[in-house]
Amino acid sequence: MTAAENFAALNLELPPAPSPLGVYKPILIVGSLVYVSGHGPVLPNGSLLFGKAGHDVNADGAKLAAQQVGLTILATLIKNLGSLNRIKRVIKVLGMVNATPDFGKHPYVINGCSELFAKIWGPDHGVGVRSAVGMGSLPDNITVEIEAVFELADA
Amino acid sequence: MTAAENFAALNLELPPAPSPLGVYKPILIVGSLVYVSGHGPVLPNGSLLFGKAGHDVNADGAKLAAQQVGLTILATLIKNLGSLNRIKRVIKVLGMVNATPDFGKHPYVINGCSELFAKIWGPDHGVGVRSAVGMGSLPDNITVEIEAVFELADA
Amino acid sequence: MTAAENFAALNLELPPAPSPLGVYKPILIVGSLVYVSGHGPVLPNGSLLFGKAGHDVNADGAKLAAQQVGLTILATLIKNLGSLNRIKRVIKVLGMVNATPDFGKHPYVINGCSELFAKIWGPDHGVGVRSAVGMGSLPDNITVEIEAVFELADA
Repeated sequence: MTAAENFAALNLELPPAPSPLGVYKPILIVGSLVYVSGHGPVLPNGSLLFGKAGHDVNADGAKLAAQQVGLTILATLIKNLGSLNRIKRVIKVLGMVNATPDFGKHPYVINGCSELFAKIWGPDHGVGVRSAVGMGSLPDNITVEIEAVFELADA
Repeated sequence: MTAAENFAALNLELPPAPSPLGVYKPILIVGSLVYVSGHGPVLPNGSLLFGKAGHDVNADGAKLAAQQVGLTILATLIKNLGSLNRIKRVIKVLGMVNATPDFGKHPYVINGCSELFAKIWGPDHGVGVRSAVGMGSLPDNITVEIEAVFELADA
Repeated sequence: MTAAENFAALNLELPPAPSPLGVYKPILIVGSLVYVSGHGPVLPNGSLLFGKAGHDVNADGAKLAAQQVGLTILATLIKNLGSLNRIKRVIKVLGMVNATPDFGKHPYVINGCSELFAKIWGPDHGVGVRSAVGMGSLPDNITVEIEAVFELADA
C-alpha cells in the first residue's frame, strides 16, 4: 500500500491547504528534506479549532485538534508536492499545545497527529523524533500548532 | 542588488552582535546550512527590549521588537560570516513571543522580523518556513526570541 | 581523551534510557545528523524531576534538572548508538523550561545541560547553537525538556 492509498483507506476528509497568515512559505525543500511551517487545526469548511487545553478544551478535544493539524499538514503536502507518495518518512515533529500552566497530557494530545502519520507512512517511516510541549498562547487561540520535517522519497 | 546593498538602502542601524549569555555558539555551520541561536531584541546601544505582549507591550511594540531581533541576527551573521551576501536564502524561522495567555497576534508580531529578511534577500529567498508561537516566559523578560536556519550561498 | 573517557571521569550515574511516552522514536539518523526527541529529567531510579521554575523549583534546582536531562540524552545516545564516541559534535539544543510568567533565568538553567555536553565533547565540539525559553507547561509537570541535534563522527 502506498501512502496515498493508506490515506484514502482512512476515509478522512482533508481541509483546504491554508494560505500563510504571515510572511512565510508553507513548505520549503532543502536537499532531501521538506521543512513544513507551523500549522493549525483547519476544518474541512476552512474554520479553525480554538481553545486552551485544561481550560475550555480537554485532553481528548485537544488530541482531535492535533489530528486535524496532521490532516492540515497532509493537505499542504499534497498541494505543494502533488502526492503523499513523494514523502519517504517523517523526520521530526514539534507539537505545541496551547495549554494552562497545570496541563500535563501533551504527549497524549500530540499522538493525535503522530498516530495519523503512522497510519499513512507506517510504524517505521511514519514515526520520527518529537517534542510535545505546552505554549502559553498560540495565534488566535488555536488549540495546537505543529511544525514538521519530512524526507523526500525521490530527492 | 545584493543583500548587503539591500540592507544599506534601508538605512537601519545595526545593534552590536551579542555575546552568548550561556554555553552556546551564536552560529554554527553544517554543510550548506547556518544554524543561528535564539536571539533577543538588542538595540544599537546594547540594551534589550523587555516586556510581555498583551500586558506591558502591545502587538505593534512586539512587532518592533521582532524587527530588532531580526537586526540582531543580521549583526551576528555579518560578524561571523563577513557579509550578508554569504547567505543564499532563509530556510526556517522559529518566532517566540513572550505573551500573556490570551494574546493571539503572534504571526503579526513575527512579521517584524520576516518582513526585514524579505527586504534583504527578496520575496523568494528572503522567506522561509516559520512558526510563530507564544512563550510563557523568556530570558530576563525580553519580548521576542527568534532562532533561524539559513543556507549559504557559497557552500 | 575520548567522549566516553570524559564521561567516565565525571563519575556521574546514568539514568535508564527512557521509553517513548508517545508515538515517536528516541533518535533518528538522517545523513550525518542525529535528531534527538525532547527528553525529560530522568533520575537513576527511573523517576522524573517535577515542578515549575519560579514556583516550586528555583533556578538552581531547575539547572540540576537540566543537567539530568543532559544525562538522560546521553543514556539514549549510548543505548541507540553504542557509544558517546559515535558523536562528533553538538549542533543544536532547544532548552525548554517549565516556568512561571515572571521567570527569567532560562540561559542559566539550560547551562546545566550545556556544561555537561561541553565537558564530554570539549569546549568547541561540545557546544552548539541553542535557544533557552520558557514554556507555559510541560508533560506531567516535568521541570525541563530538551531536544537536540548532533553530528555523527563516522557518517
